[in-house]
Amino acid sequence: MDQDDIFATAAAMADAARRATLPLFRSADLRPDNKLTTGFDPVTRADREAEQAMRAVLAQRRPDDAIMGEEFGDTPGTSGLTWVLDPIDGTRAFISGAPSWGTLIGLMDASGPVYGMIDQPFTGERFEGGLGRGRLVSALGERALGVRRGVALAQATLLSTFPEIGTAQEYDGFRRVSDSVRLTRYGLDCYAYALLSIGQVDLVIEAGLHSYDVAGPIAVVQAAGGVVTDWQGGPAHHGGQIVAAATPELHAQALALLQGEAGRLESATLYPIEREGS
Amino acid sequence: MDQDDIFATAAAMADAARRATLPLFRSADLRPDNKLTTGFDPVTRADREAEQAMRAVLAQRRPDDAIMGEEFGDTPGTSGLTWVLDPIDGTRAFISGAPSWGTLIGLMDASGPVYGMIDQPFTGERFEGGLGRGRLVSALGERALGVRRGVALAQATLLSTFPEIGTAQEYDGFRRVSDSVRLTRYGLDCYAYALLSIGQVDLVIEAGLHSYDVAGPIAVVQAAGGVVTDWQGGPAHHGGQIVAAATPELHAQALALLQGEAGRLESATLYPIEREGS
Repeated sequence: MDQDDIFATAAAMADAARRATLPLFRSADLRPDNKLTTGFDPVTRADREAEQAMRAVLAQRRPDDAIMGEEFGDTPGTSGLTWVLDPIDGTRAFISGAPSWGTLIGLMDASGPVYGMIDQPFTGERFEGGLGRGRLVSALGERALGVRRGVALAQATLLSTFPEIGTAQEYDGFRRVSDSVRLTRYGLDCYAYALLSIGQVDLVIEAGLHSYDVAGPIAVVQAAGGVVTDWQGGPAHHGGQIVAAATPELHAQALALLQGEAGRLESATLYPIEREGS
Repeated sequence: MDQDDIFATAAAMADAARRATLPLFRSADLRPDNKLTTGFDPVTRADREAEQAMRAVLAQRRPDDAIMGEEFGDTPGTSGLTWVLDPIDGTRAFISGAPSWGTLIGLMDASGPVYGMIDQPFTGERFEGGLGRGRLVSALGERALGVRRGVALAQATLLSTFPEIGTAQEYDGFRRVSDSVRLTRYGLDCYAYALLSIGQVDLVIEAGLHSYDVAGPIAVVQAAGGVVTDWQGGPAHHGGQIVAAATPELHAQALALLQGEAGRLESATLYPIEREGS
């Protein structure tokens, strides 16, 4: 695998996506369409133009790789590598003017994600991890990614995008974790994984995701030293239920809580919880 | 009232607060303290140092004005004007590394807020309104504030900081509005009022606020053409329950829904709701 060409290709794609998304962010011309007949799943010209711009980069630089994109589906390849593209993760944030959306780029081989990027054009931050790289580049310069360690579950910060997470059963599992941590915050989309990768928060839990929502973030969090699986502890890059944790200890505790009440007792025994004020 | 001196004083305070907050944002040295014995209400060195820096500006430039600050309480004055200061609105976001926190500055006379500022150091955005001014200044330049009009309730975007808003009764009122709009997003703190003031969203509803959480945002939203009251339609600058709307129509509909089920039927009759897919 030619790592330098992969890094350069991802950067060229993110740059091309920025040119498509930033001019439309907070633009009065942006008129979101709805993908659903019941409910609201917005998509905009910015999503479509950004994915097309990224696909044009791949067509020119790496035509043998496969592509899986949110807006334009699957394009087969012959190299054994697949680029997984989400031109705007957090389109709801994008149309609301909030800065939590980002462009996600993942590169997968048969084993799963090997490299990923979370690019945030509005704040000017680019998080990337995998193939030996793990860094945040911004106007402030470059810093290494790294999760924080030594935070107990009862002192942890948990992020999720929607409080109405998944099914009723999924919601119950999520609440067990949320009730066990110190702080739960919502609404951060892919930025949640970025904050985990720079040691600002300890857990990200979501459900109902797609492969394009997670392939890039998985590689970024893993490069930062974190753990990402589905709620059964298996591979997460197919989407669905995701739990990303700063440490193996927090991951095991969250997994037990997500899976049922028994897990709660077990993890409480393993890691005694001290709540402030108790 | 010397408007130019007020504008310059607010700018000097916001600049001083930025020098206190930005170096500690995402810093490993930041160790939040907890204000509560039960629950978690964080405060940091950044909150305290930013308010002290703002108070030093006022002591030098406008010693006759009163001060009401989140961290250091009330300081009496003789001018009839009170500066209302929240050095970091959204300390939970601040300690999580999320960009929704801001420094809030409000100026009140006996009638309520006459001028306000929402300053966001990390994104470099300064929203201010009142005394003839209504603008956003950022690296992109200066633009006028202005709410968006013509959005029906069923197509509206609603923001609130916590899904677990207020008491059970307050939660029920909030849910009636949330169930009537197209999109509800959480976690934006004072940035929610900023997004309302630039026409990105249509409603902000919160409960359990303090005067220092809202004095500045009220002036900003009003300068943008929006409406801000408590849930009974009265003045909002004492805190408590807040509803901020882009238009009088949305405000009236939200108020009716917040106050009870009858309001829902009434507003549905006044403004027929067309949901996508129905």
